[in-house]
Amino acid sequence: MSQSECSLPQAAVVVFDAYGTLFDVHSVRLLADQCFPGQGQALSQLWRQKQLEYTWLRSLGGRYKSFWWVTQDALRYASQALKLPMSQDQENALMQAYLKLQAFPENLAALRSLKAAGKELAILSNGERGMVNAVVAHAGMEGLFSHVLSGDQVGQYKTAPAVYALAEQAFSRPAQEMAFVSSNAWDACAARWAGFQSIWVNRQGQVPEVLDVQACAVINQLSELPGLFL
Amino acid sequence: MSQSECSLPQAAVVVFDAYGTLFDVHSVRLLADQCFPGQGQALSQLWRQKQLEYTWLRSLGGRYKSFWWVTQDALRYASQALKLPMSQDQENALMQAYLKLQAFPENLAALRSLKAAGKELAILSNGERGMVNAVVAHAGMEGLFSHVLSGDQVGQYKTAPAVYALAEQAFSRPAQEMAFVSSNAWDACAARWAGFQSIWVNRQGQVPEVLDVQACAVINQLSELPGLFL
Repeated sequence: MSQSECSLPQAAVVVFDAYGTLFDVHSVRLLADQCFPGQGQALSQLWRQKQLEYTWLRSLGGRYKSFWWVTQDALRYASQALKLPMSQDQENALMQAYLKLQAFPENLAALRSLKAAGKELAILSNGERGMVNAVVAHAGMEGLFSHVLSGDQVGQYKTAPAVYALAEQAFSRPAQEMAFVSSNAWDACAARWAGFQSIWVNRQGQVPEVLDVQACAVINQLSELPGLFL
Repeated sequence: MSQSECSLPQAAVVVFDAYGTLFDVHSVRLLADQCFPGQGQALSQLWRQKQLEYTWLRSLGGRYKSFWWVTQDALRYASQALKLPMSQDQENALMQAYLKLQAFPENLAALRSLKAAGKELAILSNGERGMVNAVVAHAGMEGLFSHVLSGDQVGQYKTAPAVYALAEQAFSRPAQEMAFVSSNAWDACAARWAGFQSIWVNRQGQVPEVLDVQACAVINQLSELPGLFL
């Protein structure tokens, strides 16, 4: 699909990735640093990297296991790899923190602005709906989304086409009529593969993935999002 | 599958992963360091990490592209991410180096020993057979393998079950009767998912992956392999 097929103002629906995009997966760093002084950032980063790897390895290998447990497996790997012995209480606390991830501060206003402009909003996440609903509620975002969709409904993880297709099914619209917003560069690419008009939220100034496709737009934070649809 | 189903001495066939197991993907480090003084190790590591990520993302997303080009894409990503501007000549040289990766020094003797003991040997790789045959020839390993099998034959990458099944088809044997040897911890796990008696070559003393399965055996280098089949 060429970039010229991007026409964001015509998108009636805006679908959001959850982890990393709406919610800061690294907001666990503070608690991780209390558990393992000076190692919070390293643990948070390896935890996230392994969490993603395990979703890809399992889904591709036909060994789906739900995101909560994959997240726990990744945490256990990270603590072992970094030689940070983790008590059961620490593990429990870190896992519970995943249900209270902080939203990036500008996100709530951006979502409200889009909704006020008549867009229908949704979340499409690897996380089970229970996990996602918990962070949505914690962030005061209840009522903003028409659908909270999860790969758990099809027992697969992104980048499997069946996961992205959930949004087409929920809204009875082709992907081409919807925007997909992710801060995960690979997710923004895979959404393009699936036909969406994707927007990459590049908060960290990363270089793009080399996957033969580019997002329709790149922004630095969600506050720039409403302007793309004018 | 439980560990108790492992019985390595009864394996008639030993299947090897290529990159990282027989051949040292980080043997490009020297050339990379000549291109980018002081940055060879960083480039080599990110190149490899992205190469794997791209195989997972593409295969799961139904966007297979052959390993040579995925390897080139990953190299381009790595040079951009590390802010190491790469000339066309440098890119060509680094890609050509991938056809001459060094075998780990003990490997040739270990393979010959297994073959002399009556085992049938094969390679099962993500790489196209042309790529793999080049490194096999460069390492003086020609004639040792009954089959050089590649995910390219099915247009998928590990951990897709169809890739591991290539060995079952080639030898007309169930995976349970074959050993699978990989230094990539995730590959040794996925081979167990596929039914093989897998052996993890843990050269770096890494911690195991947390994927609900363990290799049948863990060794530090291939010279320990023949002893497992006695």
